[in-house]
This record gives sequence, structure tokens and C-alpha cells, in this order.
Amino acid sequence: MTNKPLNVLLLAGGVGGAKMAEGLQSNSNIVLTILGNIGDDDSFHGLWVSPDIDTMIYTLSEEINRKQGWGVREDDYKALSFLSKLGADTWMSLGDKDFGLHIYRTERLRRGDRASDITKDIAKAFGIEARIILPSDDIVQTKVLTDKGWLTFQEYFVKERCDPEVKEIKFEGLEVAKPTYEALDAISTADIILIAPSNPFVSISPILKIPGILEALKETSVKKLAVSPLINGKAVKGPAEKIMTSLGMQADAIGIASFYGDLIDTIIIDNVDSELSPKIRTLGIEVFCTDILMSNSSEKKRLAEEILFLAKNNNLPEGAER
Amino acid sequence: MTNKPLNVLLLAGGVGGAKMAEGLQSNSNIVLTILGNIGDDDSFHGLWVSPDIDTMIYTLSEEINRKQGWGVREDDYKALSFLSKLGADTWMSLGDKDFGLHIYRTERLRRGDRASDITKDIAKAFGIEARIILPSDDIVQTKVLTDKGWLTFQEYFVKERCDPEVKEIKFEGLEVAKPTYEALDAISTADIILIAPSNPFVSISPILKIPGILEALKETSVKKLAVSPLINGKAVKGPAEKIMTSLGMQADAIGIASFYGDLIDTIIIDNVDSELSPKIRTLGIEVFCTDILMSNSSEKKRLAEEILFLAKNNNLPEGAER
Repeated sequence: MTNKPLNVLLLAGGVGGAKMAEGLQSNSNIVLTILGNIGDDDSFHGLWVSPDIDTMIYTLSEEINRKQGWGVREDDYKALSFLSKLGADTWMSLGDKDFGLHIYRTERLRRGDRASDITKDIAKAFGIEARIILPSDDIVQTKVLTDKGWLTFQEYFVKERCDPEVKEIKFEGLEVAKPTYEALDAISTADIILIAPSNPFVSISPILKIPGILEALKETSVKKLAVSPLINGKAVKGPAEKIMTSLGMQADAIGIASFYGDLIDTIIIDNVDSELSPKIRTLGIEVFCTDILMSNSSEKKRLAEEILFLAKNNNLPEGAER
Repeated sequence: MTNKPLNVLLLAGGVGGAKMAEGLQSNSNIVLTILGNIGDDDSFHGLWVSPDIDTMIYTLSEEINRKQGWGVREDDYKALSFLSKLGADTWMSLGDKDFGLHIYRTERLRRGDRASDITKDIAKAFGIEARIILPSDDIVQTKVLTDKGWLTFQEYFVKERCDPEVKEIKFEGLEVAKPTYEALDAISTADIILIAPSNPFVSISPILKIPGILEALKETSVKKLAVSPLINGKAVKGPAEKIMTSLGMQADAIGIASFYGDLIDTIIIDNVDSELSPKIRTLGIEVFCTDILMSNSSEKKRLAEEILFLAKNNNLPEGAER
């Protein structure tokens, strides 16, 4: 092994992705690049909001509201109270500090700046060392078909609280979307590619489906690992298992492994799911079991260290449960 | 006299205009229409802000921060703190609730709605009975020439705190601006036209200069009164006397009366300025003296009542000092 820090590329969605990124960013032996999800992006009150990217920025800068896992700590809803008074539809909880960021992003987008450059500048202003890059600077929006028709992801997730059954998922704008050079470059120069315990269908898929991204990922021969977003068939947060069941898939780590298929060579699942390992191995995917819940800062660090050890040594470190 | 309520049209700028409007709106014998100033309007962080109109709305809905005379009570600056963190220029104090209103207005303007219609809807949502109308739906911006070059009014007023000497004032956009039908209609149907104790040069002029407005005002034969914004040669608030001195004018009630000239038939000045009355009368303008400071709610009401009495009876009521 050389002493050169490893380039780790993390494909990450919402809260689970941000937690994994947090564990990795404290590791001084790697250079971390996060390829985030823009599929949840949407316009609210004429402002462009990028929920997953914002959650990542707030988490890595410790501005996050830890209790919620999203939004900004010590924020308030005064702007929203006036919008509501003015008759605007305010089901999307946008805090005042949060609005400051959306106002900034929107103004720069209107000026013609690339979303990637704006994100880079926001991350810098928030003191984040990891690179946060976007799969595309074009608009690609996740839409969910339900009994109520096609909903944007935030309509499904926030307004409808994931209640309606999901019949189909699509990503609008894919036909014309181009990948960013940052994403293609990060994929080709990564030493390890890691898929965070994010929802595969609505957080990771919108990244993979941007033309050129999946192809680039398949071309590289580095180690590619995924961490299961399901523990005992349940998502730690969000609607992953509901969506899997709705779509007629197996809502467990096997379903996750099947979904990624030959994109990954290794999956990390929770100890409680260890009996699923043999079945996953029949898919040609190596399995390691450990505690993947990440309920506090030291667990995030420990999981990050185990994954990095595994990537280098093809085994978990001594003492990690498996 | 009939019992039909009088149509009172108030030409009003910032804080002084809002105080006068407040005194008038409590009077049940009149129908109040306020023709506001849009010359201070400007874009901040990509949002369209209309300071004088907002001050009017916040004042008449009792949302105003009474201590400041502008802005919203119980507001905070969380959005601005993030904009500042992101490197934006945040000399313009915009509160969080205030941002909610600017976001709403900007979204509707981008959709193509008329500024007049947006203002009407905001006033309605804020429970304001008086009509607030705009002189134009086009952008007409007050620019102030100083040693630092041409500044927008907010740059001069807020950023530079009225420090630089004013060499010239212009209103950009006048050439193509059209008056609103609401303004022309309100002028032609008014029973009394009142000019609030606002800055004549930067609050009232931008209204008068919109093509068609001054002509319409001169065509009507109703009583036209102005209240002096200067007491003992000083503005109660804002840079009126500084600007007058800079422009080589007489910074007192005589200067104000000369400025309005034959547009008004009557001016109301403060008791402390009573010795100026003979000189003002030589201009062909009738003068009445009373206490015009309006430092509290009952003084606002009392002044409004006296003015309405004066408009009907061509004299101040018994007991008013003069």
C-alpha cells in the first residue's frame, strides 16, 4: 500500500447518504467526493430547492437539525408564515435560514451559473472539505405515479407522507440531460466507489440514469461496494421498503443486491440480516455483515473505517461482527 | 353636505406617508385610496422589494415594527445570515417575514402578474381596507447622483446612510412608463387630494412624474392639500432637508410649498413654523398651522380629522392651534 490518500467516491441520496458521508469525512486517509442526488429538486415559491444536496451540505457543516435529520438547526419559519398568510401552499417545510440558501442558489441559477459551480461555492462557504458534485447540471426530476397521478418526489414524500401506493417511478428530463465533467472525472479517478445506504429507487437511480454515468461506473475496475439501506426489511428512514413492496420487489437486502446487480461487487448488510448472505452470494455479490445503523457520530466513523478497511483488505477488520 | 363618504386620495411615500394613512384609515367617514411610491423599488438577491409599499402595508395591518417605522414586528434575520455566510452583500436589512412577502411578490411578477394586482392581493391578505394603488406597473427607479456616482435610492438611503451630497435626482424608466388605470381613475374620482408629509423629491416626485399623473391631478378641481414633511426646517425622518440644501433649495415649509406650487391650493405646516405663513401665501397657497408631528396613534387620528374638516370647511376645527 502507498501512503497516497485513497479517492473515495460516494453515491449518496438523503439522510442515509449524509450520515455515511459524515462518517467518511472525518477519515484523514481518504479524499472524499460525494456524487449527490438532484432528482428531488423542485421549485417552491419560485425558488429552486435541492433537498438532498442541501441535507448533505447542512450535515457536513454541522448546520443540520440533528433531531429531524434535515433542515437547519435553530431555524424558524417566519418567511413561511407570511407566505401562508398570502395564500401560498406551504406544505414544504422551508426554514428561514434554509430560504437564505434557496434565494442564493436561485439568483445564481437565474444569472446562468452552473448548478455544480453554485454547489461548490455553497460547500466552500459552509467550510466543507469534501467535494460535493452533481451528476448533471440539467434538471432531472423524479416523478412517482400514484392513485393521485404523477407526483414530484417532494409531493409524494412530504405532502402525501408516502401514503399513496407507488405504481411507477420515472425521471423527467433524462432524454436531454448531460453528465457533468466533474462526475465523469470523479468516477474514472476513484479508488473506491461506494453506494450509501440511500433509497436505490429514488436516491441512487436518478444518479445512475443520467446518460453516461452508469456506463462510466461499469467501465472502472475499482472496488464497488453498496451499504444496504434496509435493516430487517425496514428502511432506517424514508419509504424504501414501501416502494419496493409496491413495485412487487423483495423488500430486503437481497432485493437491494439484485437491484444493483453487477454494478457492485460487494454489499454490506446488517448483522441482523446475516442469514440472507448465502442467497446474495448466489448473485455473484460478496457480502459482509456488520452494524450499519449509524445512530451516532462514533458509529458513523466506525462503519466508515470498516468499509475502508474492507475495500483495501477484502475483509472486515478483526473485531467487527460478521 | 351629503352623507356619502368622501373619496380621499393620499399621495404617500415612506414612513411619513404611512403614518398619515394610518390616521386616515381609522376615519369611517371617508373612503381612503393611497397612491404609493414605487421609486424605491429594487432587486435584492433576485427578489423584487418595494420598500415604501411594504411599509404602507405593514403599517396599515399593524405588522409594522413600530420602533423602526419600517420592517415587520417580531421579525428575525436568519435568511440574511445565510445569505451573508454565502458571501452576498447584505447591507439591506430584510427580515425573514419580510422575505416571505418579497418571495411571494417576485414569484407572481415572474408569472407575469401586474404589480398593481399583486399589491391589491397582498393588502387583502393583510386585512387592509384602504385601497393601495400604484402610479405605474412599469419599473421607475429613483437614482441619486453623488460623489460616488449614480446610486439607487436604497443605496443612497440605506447603504450610504444619506451621507453623500446629492447633486441630482432622476427617475429611470419614465420615458416608457405608463400610468395605471387605477391611479388615473382614483385621481378623477377623488373628492380630496392630499399629499402626505413625505419627501417631495424622492417619495412624491416619482409618483407625479409618471406620464399622465401630474396632468390628471391638475385637471381635477377638488381641494388639494399637502402636509409639510419639515418641522422647523428638519425632516421628522429621512433626508428631505439634506437633499433640499444639497440641491440649493430653501429647506423649510416655504421650499416645500414652492416645490408643489400650483399643484396644491393649501399647505398644512407645523405651529412652530407659523411665521412662514405670510411668505407661503404670497405663492398663492393657503396655509394652516397645527401640530403635524404624529408621534402616536391619537395624534395621527387628530391630524387626519383636522385635515378632513379643513378640506370640507376651508378652516381648521375650533380648538386646533393655528
